[in-house]
Amino acid sequence: MFYTDGKLQFPVRVETPNPLFARALQQAIGGVEGEIRVAMQYFFQACGARGNPKFRDLLMNTAAEELGHIEMLATAVALNLEGAPLKLKEEVAADPVGGAILGGLNLKNLLSSGLSAMPVDSDGVPFDMSHIYASGNIAADMTANIAAESTGRTLAVRLYEMTNDPGMKEMLSYLIARDTMHQNQWMAALEELGGTRGAFPIPNSFPQEQELEEFSYAYLGFMADGSEPAPGRWSEGPSIDGKGTFKSMPMKSMGEEPVLGPARPNSGAQSEQM
Amino acid sequence: MFYTDGKLQFPVRVETPNPLFARALQQAIGGVEGEIRVAMQYFFQACGARGNPKFRDLLMNTAAEELGHIEMLATAVALNLEGAPLKLKEEVAADPVGGAILGGLNLKNLLSSGLSAMPVDSDGVPFDMSHIYASGNIAADMTANIAAESTGRTLAVRLYEMTNDPGMKEMLSYLIARDTMHQNQWMAALEELGGTRGAFPIPNSFPQEQELEEFSYAYLGFMADGSEPAPGRWSEGPSIDGKGTFKSMPMKSMGEEPVLGPARPNSGAQSEQM
Amino acid sequence: MFYTDGKLQFPVRVETPNPLFARALQQAIGGVEGEIRVAMQYFFQACGARGNPKFRDLLMNTAAEELGHIEMLATAVALNLEGAPLKLKEEVAADPVGGAILGGLNLKNLLSSGLSAMPVDSDGVPFDMSHIYASGNIAADMTANIAAESTGRTLAVRLYEMTNDPGMKEMLSYLIARDTMHQNQWMAALEELGGTRGAFPIPNSFPQEQELEEFSYAYLGFMADGSEPAPGRWSEGPSIDGKGTFKSMPMKSMGEEPVLGPARPNSGAQSEQM
Amino acid sequence: MFYTDGKLQFPVRVETPNPLFARALQQAIGGVEGEIRVAMQYFFQACGARGNPKFRDLLMNTAAEELGHIEMLATAVALNLEGAPLKLKEEVAADPVGGAILGGLNLKNLLSSGLSAMPVDSDGVPFDMSHIYASGNIAADMTANIAAESTGRTLAVRLYEMTNDPGMKEMLSYLIARDTMHQNQWMAALEELGGTRGAFPIPNSFPQEQELEEFSYAYLGFMADGSEPAPGRWSEGPSIDGKGTFKSMPMKSMGEEPVLGPARPNSGAQSEQM
Amino acid sequence: MFYTDGKLQFPVRVETPNPLFARALQQAIGGVEGEIRVAMQYFFQACGARGNPKFRDLLMNTAAEELGHIEMLATAVALNLEGAPLKLKEEVAADPVGGAILGGLNLKNLLSSGLSAMPVDSDGVPFDMSHIYASGNIAADMTANIAAESTGRTLAVRLYEMTNDPGMKEMLSYLIARDTMHQNQWMAALEELGGTRGAFPIPNSFPQEQELEEFSYAYLGFMADGSEPAPGRWSEGPSIDGKGTFKSMPMKSMGEEPVLGPARPNSGAQSEQM
Amino acid sequence: MFYTDGKLQFPVRVETPNPLFARALQQAIGGVEGEIRVAMQYFFQACGARGNPKFRDLLMNTAAEELGHIEMLATAVALNLEGAPLKLKEEVAADPVGGAILGGLNLKNLLSSGLSAMPVDSDGVPFDMSHIYASGNIAADMTANIAAESTGRTLAVRLYEMTNDPGMKEMLSYLIARDTMHQNQWMAALEELGGTRGAFPIPNSFPQEQELEEFSYAYLGFMADGSEPAPGRWSEGPSIDGKGTFKSMPMKSMGEEPVLGPARPNSGAQSEQM
Repeated sequence: MFYTDGKLQFPVRVETPNPLFARALQQAIGGVEGEIRVAMQYFFQACGARGNPKFRDLLMNTAAEELGHIEMLATAVALNLEGAPLKLKEEVAADPVGGAILGGLNLKNLLSSGLSAMPVDSDGVPFDMSHIYASGNIAADMTANIAAESTGRTLAVRLYEMTNDPGMKEMLSYLIARDTMHQNQWMAALEELGGTRGAFPIPNSFPQEQELEEFSYAYLGFMADGSEPAPGRWSEGPSIDGKGTFKSMPMKSMGEEPVLGPARPNSGAQSEQM
Repeated sequence: MFYTDGKLQFPVRVETPNPLFARALQQAIGGVEGEIRVAMQYFFQACGARGNPKFRDLLMNTAAEELGHIEMLATAVALNLEGAPLKLKEEVAADPVGGAILGGLNLKNLLSSGLSAMPVDSDGVPFDMSHIYASGNIAADMTANIAAESTGRTLAVRLYEMTNDPGMKEMLSYLIARDTMHQNQWMAALEELGGTRGAFPIPNSFPQEQELEEFSYAYLGFMADGSEPAPGRWSEGPSIDGKGTFKSMPMKSMGEEPVLGPARPNSGAQSEQM
Repeated sequence: MFYTDGKLQFPVRVETPNPLFARALQQAIGGVEGEIRVAMQYFFQACGARGNPKFRDLLMNTAAEELGHIEMLATAVALNLEGAPLKLKEEVAADPVGGAILGGLNLKNLLSSGLSAMPVDSDGVPFDMSHIYASGNIAADMTANIAAESTGRTLAVRLYEMTNDPGMKEMLSYLIARDTMHQNQWMAALEELGGTRGAFPIPNSFPQEQELEEFSYAYLGFMADGSEPAPGRWSEGPSIDGKGTFKSMPMKSMGEEPVLGPARPNSGAQSEQM
Repeated sequence: MFYTDGKLQFPVRVETPNPLFARALQQAIGGVEGEIRVAMQYFFQACGARGNPKFRDLLMNTAAEELGHIEMLATAVALNLEGAPLKLKEEVAADPVGGAILGGLNLKNLLSSGLSAMPVDSDGVPFDMSHIYASGNIAADMTANIAAESTGRTLAVRLYEMTNDPGMKEMLSYLIARDTMHQNQWMAALEELGGTRGAFPIPNSFPQEQELEEFSYAYLGFMADGSEPAPGRWSEGPSIDGKGTFKSMPMKSMGEEPVLGPARPNSGAQSEQM
Repeated sequence: MFYTDGKLQFPVRVETPNPLFARALQQAIGGVEGEIRVAMQYFFQACGARGNPKFRDLLMNTAAEELGHIEMLATAVALNLEGAPLKLKEEVAADPVGGAILGGLNLKNLLSSGLSAMPVDSDGVPFDMSHIYASGNIAADMTANIAAESTGRTLAVRLYEMTNDPGMKEMLSYLIARDTMHQNQWMAALEELGGTRGAFPIPNSFPQEQELEEFSYAYLGFMADGSEPAPGRWSEGPSIDGKGTFKSMPMKSMGEEPVLGPARPNSGAQSEQM
Repeated sequence: MFYTDGKLQFPVRVETPNPLFARALQQAIGGVEGEIRVAMQYFFQACGARGNPKFRDLLMNTAAEELGHIEMLATAVALNLEGAPLKLKEEVAADPVGGAILGGLNLKNLLSSGLSAMPVDSDGVPFDMSHIYASGNIAADMTANIAAESTGRTLAVRLYEMTNDPGMKEMLSYLIARDTMHQNQWMAALEELGGTRGAFPIPNSFPQEQELEEFSYAYLGFMADGSEPAPGRWSEGPSIDGKGTFKSMPMKSMGEEPVLGPARPNSGAQSEQM
């Protein structure tokens, strides 16, 4: 169950409203690496967490934090949209600047939401909840969370570099710090789950003797000329999960050309296929 | 550039076609944790790889492998659909089994594709390419790949447990082994990129003194009663990236209630908002 | 900013787990009339609310409530999935019941989320955030909210009728009651905004003399034979907004057949179009 | 069954083609508050209308009208795209205006449709038919229609304010007038269905004694400090549906922390979860 | 502009309602090869038709026909849903049949639309208007229409084979006949546009000497072993458009391994990429 | 199974990077008429091909080619993004040009992918795999392929006209040539399948006496005034498939107004509908 205090988690101020930056900030709200994604991902992972309840607590607590981040960013979008042009110049030639700004906006931020934020990305594409990865495997979920925070911090850094507004830079320096923590936090949770050697390969509950172990630690090459693939840490030495040794080998097809057999009568195929 | 030999990477055989299992296999083709996702993700990451070209090679080589996995699974779907009913019984009561199978299929596998595979998941939802994470940050990409292979192997294991068909179990034992390798492979690449302490926080090119460091390693609590959040590895000890020390503290709102100001004239708001 | 206490807003118990009902409940989570929709809709409306701050408070407070409803329903889905079959029978003919249940599930609830809830609807389609209506016009938002709660309560009633489980009926009787309140609540907000006669036509800030008033209160008929359309309250008497009088008339095309002119050279059209 | 006369319902003329306005107009075609939405929504509601056939007639008649509105807007988009640049300047610096226009377009209007309209919104996002609300409950449908026309008229007003073209202003003054009528029309239909007191809570066929009536007219507060939520018409006095009395109270969690129990063997979870 | 007469284009009757067939029919409404697609495709092609106005007339006239087909199918869906179970059996084991039917439905047809049709496909996926192909090239549009009617008739035939209901078979025999006509109709339009030799390659307005003609009629082989690709009509003889001669040859990469150069500072990449 | 050689199929060079052209090129990657679509369409058609295996070979071979085209275009996008601005000017008025370029980009190409290509179209909309038409009917598939290559070549021509960069023009002249071949190639395959008279109406396995032949070759008119529809090749003479004779006639509704009967109790409808 959730509560609110109606206030912002961290101050949001904009010294010079910039409608183009509002568009960019939308990526941090409704982009696949944005805050709706992490808020909802941690929320659904929490709701499905089985086993030690400390992970449910960890996930739901952080979901609450991320909801507040969406709120901060939505406020920042609205403040940056202040002063956006509401009128198209009849003669764009006479005022390219206004036209450029208007053309550069997500028009929906003006036409659909009246100068406020929307759950869309920086190109106006709505967020699709299929991006909520909650697998029922707590370690797999942690890898998805590390990935989400890694792309999320990358985005926040890009936004930080894009603006010169002191208020926006301050807000982003807070969000970047939180992404640093969250990357570490989910790695810490993975450590509690056994770390690289205990948790991997995920799921660790599957008996590895049932997989085709000949291929479990082989770096296969798919070069057209049959040459060895480019070597690296992945082609020799102990595997990272500590359960095998990397090797490298060119791959050849082991199966035949598949034959599906003729189409069945009344199946809507052409006569020539039957 | 890509080439084919028209053959299957690994043999695909189905002893007893099972249309419901065909539906389940669709998740491994068009699900968000399926093979289209990894094939296209590695492909686009390769196309955008900057810096040491060995990562481009690694990624494109593995993309080629995954394309062959889609082909294997698509063949498996078609073979399992053999014998699916094409006709609805007038009286389902007289034959519940046929009705159950037909009702249990993705009907599109019958109506749209004529008993063959489609780029959709196990509930018939088409794959959406927004799931291709290719961030321009090679380390962030590796975390996304580890996550993809972790959820991917979890799915493959679930499919393995679901079927008793020897041919399908053999095919899946190969795919599970490959997922084991790929989890390890991307972790190995991350190790080449500096490992946990060198690569994190991602992106490692951003000067940490520009983030609000007070919050960089703090596990904040959002409990309504102001209590400490549940402790764990994430709340004390050195941070996983080796650049700070975890601490824990309840969080309070630092900002005020946001005020956007009145709506502008001619902005489509109600008069009461102006 | 949001907080949690880790507990459920209302008790969720399931006496007899029913995987098919789990599927049905998914509609109340990720359907277009479900709880993600209302939670996020009120949240974004709050973030963009201009004018009297009491509406921001009202919206954000109710957003917090709805987040707790998602949590309740996600718990109910997981509990109903207990006991779902994880294995396909080799011979469905020998056990139609298990096959029917497995075929009747959203397979993603098993394959992707490991027997827990997902942000998808009852057919496994992920929620799309374009359904978050937050228009920047507070009265238009209220109409969208009334609509959301009307379809939402309709759904909850259908779920209530579908199950015989006492725990589920109790949970739904709470949610139905809340939908009753929320329908009334948003109508009350509309009353504060002037009610039918003060708020409509929305937006009320547009001078009606600028619309083509001849058509503002006319029920136009589009019957192929030119007859009058079927009469009703909408074709005679004072208009509901009190600003006009309904009339009825068959409609004829007032424009000509549009002519776009030839395609431009180099525009990718056929030569015959130029 | 539908017929056409090949002409436009209302004249569409553009004095000064403006490609940026073409982009804006796309929102009125393929936006969630646009004309495809209402045309298809009324159409599907008509097809599913049960009970008094006058509502089917009303809905299908208005669906026919809205189809003509899409046609008008599509013509307007094509006319505004006349003169759009087909060529990128090599040196944008030398001609910022052309570049601004090209950058400001939905590029698909040029690349995919050859300077004509598409069923997409103003940011190029295709319309998704999940926005067609047709609930099988005729009163719920009316609330969805009032909401659609309220956001639709808000959009039309914003477009009207954005342009100075006399032809476009005239066309929009017609469409705004029709939205005025349609808001009133659906409110009139709701009045025929019993009005606020007869139709609500929707669905009115559910016996209210089966809902948890203690919560049916309570404005619950979710403030973190346990304070009363901000009062309003929604917290005291008779409820709008006339069936209860509003009250206000802070809410506390009534359920416990949910416990799902351990993961099942072979379910793809980690060993630690079992 | 469109008109209606409120009647069905062709009689729709269902002797034995079959909820599973209702689900199948949804594919013909909201599937990518369904009637919404053709209705809207012809409509948008008409709205963007440049050049000889007879094509606009042809397209808009057929759009009107297809709207009536959606109406027929939506009626058929509702009639087939009559008698669908509204209640889940507590003990599915005791009544597998009812469970199978309920599990086999698109649950949204029950939960969201109250036993009526929706703009979704047979797996409950909403139609996405990006499937409306209207290219601004009238010949390309005709090829898209032939394709739409070819997959459409294939679907209609599959539905015809699936049912034994005389009323449904009669309705489908009408729709199949119309698809026959429409395949021919669009081929006839292509013939008016010059036929295979006049219209192709599409667009025919592009001077072929500007394409790299060495590759214009070559069947390139991408076999990993460098062998010739399998021959056919496409590898020898005059080309179908009459403008070249087919040849066949194995392909080799003509470009180098691409090198993008290092990542830019402040671009969010890892330090190792710069 | 697929192989790669890590090189480009055809050289890709950009003399003057143009970020706006990068945006345009995205349409050829992730647009519905782009290269992902054809690569995956031919791939899935190959995987489901029944009957003569030469069609599987043809399709899979061409799928391999198209994968290489995506790679070329993705490289071109990255090269054109070189030099894109990473920073918003504080005062756009002072530098309209930079602002115009930044506003004109797909911002995701900068924020999400770090100046590299994504599987999205020119407006940033991700590719949706529902556009992969693989019907199980080999002739229907060929019509879909002709349509894909017709819209694809139209797009390539528009891109060619849009740029003056010699490298880009050269690359596009290759891709345009390949589209010429592919249009011809699929027409050649259709010829092998019997050509217009042998393959149509598709599917040709359905006995035409089971369709309502009275309507199989009739051009029906849906003009509101009951007049004959505009004549053309489609209204007289032998049908293109050689199996009938075109005729023309105005259409009248043959069915009645549909009546669905009252809503069922407990179905969530209003009382007035029961």
